[in-house]
Amino acid sequence: MAFVTGFRRAIQKLTSLSVYQFSRRTTKRHVAGFILGTGIATFGTLTVAQMESSRRRKLNTSVYMAEPITDVDQLLTSEDDMKTKMELLILKIQADFCRALEAEEYAGQKFKVDRWLRNEGGGGITCVLQDGEVFEKAGVNISVVKGHLPPQAVQQMRSRGKKLTEGSKLPFFAAGVSAVIHPRNPMVPTIHFNYRYFEVIDTDGSKQWWFGGGTDLTPYYLDEKDAVSFHKTLKDACDESDLEYYPKFKKWCDEYFRITHRGECRGIGGIFFDDIDAPNQEKAFKFVSDCAHAVIPSYLPIVRRHKNDAYGERERQWQLLRRGRYVEFNLIYDRGTKFGLYTPGARYESILMSLPLTARWEYMHSPPPNSKEQKLIDILKNPKDWL
Amino acid sequence: MAFVTGFRRAIQKLTSLSVYQFSRRTTKRHVAGFILGTGIATFGTLTVAQMESSRRRKLNTSVYMAEPITDVDQLLTSEDDMKTKMELLILKIQADFCRALEAEEYAGQKFKVDRWLRNEGGGGITCVLQDGEVFEKAGVNISVVKGHLPPQAVQQMRSRGKKLTEGSKLPFFAAGVSAVIHPRNPMVPTIHFNYRYFEVIDTDGSKQWWFGGGTDLTPYYLDEKDAVSFHKTLKDACDESDLEYYPKFKKWCDEYFRITHRGECRGIGGIFFDDIDAPNQEKAFKFVSDCAHAVIPSYLPIVRRHKNDAYGERERQWQLLRRGRYVEFNLIYDRGTKFGLYTPGARYESILMSLPLTARWEYMHSPPPNSKEQKLIDILKNPKDWL
Repeated sequence: MAFVTGFRRAIQKLTSLSVYQFSRRTTKRHVAGFILGTGIATFGTLTVAQMESSRRRKLNTSVYMAEPITDVDQLLTSEDDMKTKMELLILKIQADFCRALEAEEYAGQKFKVDRWLRNEGGGGITCVLQDGEVFEKAGVNISVVKGHLPPQAVQQMRSRGKKLTEGSKLPFFAAGVSAVIHPRNPMVPTIHFNYRYFEVIDTDGSKQWWFGGGTDLTPYYLDEKDAVSFHKTLKDACDESDLEYYPKFKKWCDEYFRITHRGECRGIGGIFFDDIDAPNQEKAFKFVSDCAHAVIPSYLPIVRRHKNDAYGERERQWQLLRRGRYVEFNLIYDRGTKFGLYTPGARYESILMSLPLTARWEYMHSPPPNSKEQKLIDILKNPKDWL
Repeated sequence: MAFVTGFRRAIQKLTSLSVYQFSRRTTKRHVAGFILGTGIATFGTLTVAQMESSRRRKLNTSVYMAEPITDVDQLLTSEDDMKTKMELLILKIQADFCRALEAEEYAGQKFKVDRWLRNEGGGGITCVLQDGEVFEKAGVNISVVKGHLPPQAVQQMRSRGKKLTEGSKLPFFAAGVSAVIHPRNPMVPTIHFNYRYFEVIDTDGSKQWWFGGGTDLTPYYLDEKDAVSFHKTLKDACDESDLEYYPKFKKWCDEYFRITHRGECRGIGGIFFDDIDAPNQEKAFKFVSDCAHAVIPSYLPIVRRHKNDAYGERERQWQLLRRGRYVEFNLIYDRGTKFGLYTPGARYESILMSLPLTARWEYMHSPPPNSKEQKLIDILKNPKDWL
């Protein structure tokens, strides 16, 4: 048990260290730029030792898309707290993913960054790249929110099996990253992912926490090689923690992303999970971190394989119709969207950034039998195992 | 009281007569066509008296978009029943409206007609005109549905104040017409209307019934003259029944068609009401019938005024963004859509025909200050009295 605790602390150190290493590397670049810009006089005012110590004391936030939501001093004095670790993880995942997508654009299109704060506590960073050459609409959002759960929300959690005191307003903390990427070329699938951490403090002061998340792919045309490589990358990430995770969370994903009234799935799935609080907080965090780090390797190779594929009006129209289905799922069924929009004071622009730039609805549209469009529908109606 | 009952019966007769007169007029035309087509030999097999009697016995269903949902013999033997009267009303409203819209098209575009039946009882007629020159997507639907309300639906009705026995499965009947018209020209507003009748039989055999409905306008650019004429036509229809109806139902409409998360109304309103069961069934039916007959005079003059207005890419893009808001309202808030889609076995294509052909979502879009687009937003955020 002492070994496990020691091991856990070692992992904690490693995880927080990795953030520092990353920031140290890029700080150097930034300081160098600063030195080149202002000359030797500035350099002369700082000794190398002073720079080292200031680096150690300060979190280099310039690697993120914007300043963290939580005050940097507070993050630095609570580096072992899961709230801090999760905020630093999602800041990093957001920045890595946005930069990886920007690198695929040809004309240097960049994400527009909005950092926003909530009156009730916390805030978020919303990054949107709209009307790019490769990405028609790409949204990557993080939020770090604290406040008090109203009794109805507590009741809802109780109904999901959480042991919380009924009828009370309980303090909570939630941090998460979520993204939806709608590419322009219909041969490139849409990807969605979301990783989140939740804490509630009960009336007796005891804390409950859990993680949730998932990554899933929505192609417009089915490429079996893409489907296999996508699922394989997610499975490898899951297998690091538990061999039972991938099959369980793959199934959960197929069940969750279902457009019930049409009897079809939104896409070809991936993984989806919630209420992860085992085997312990560190391992659960490592699992979520592994999954979040698997997003780029699961998706970017597919983008590169297809972003220059030929397509015509037929493929574009089909893509727009499928985007209509995406809107149907998100606005009618998605728990996160609904919960978000029904929350007074919610930043609806960040919630609705998941919607495509353009979508289409045709009455009674049905693809020709045996067409490549019908091949996709067949898979969406009967999700299969890809591995 | 005897006078009131006598008067009510007289109105009942008048209402059912009007349907027969209408069908008799058009029957004549059809029989004439038949005679011309097949010649004297056919004429010789039918005496005038036989034709009169067959006309009296048969409802001329050829004036509708399709055969009624209820068996014609049953309709003819229950002509005083409100179920019959409502079915005949919505069949007529649907046909009148579809033909009025078709007459506005230049190249003879026609509605596609789907008559469908439900396994659980009843069915509907869905008429859609898609990709017309004047109407980009126009859907006009009727449904006549019977079955048993599950206990949860009964519970929901009880929470709305209906006195029904808890925990029972109760027989119900519902008939309604609904339409959403999305024109191509951004200077022509979208219209929506819906008129419906509902009956539930309680465990003791007692019947409860009520009407609901409304008509509302969603312009892309504000034309105050249109707004005033639209509201005036609806007010006149309401005033026939009760001078308090228009102000009450205008307010209800502004409150109902609200995109809460954006703090704006879907459009410039109209009228909306539910649970109308006073002063008596005949008068309530007459009120609903007056409102339904006011749709064409409220809308068609606006279509004619603007269908040839000049517009450019800016107006088209704004129209598509506003259509995105329309989708948000319909999929997130509209009770009818949600109730419909959550009902197992619902005909989702008929429910979703209300969605526009194309819609657009831009992150953080906001029209330039003092622009004509901003002028619309100002009204949507603060609905005003037009009369």
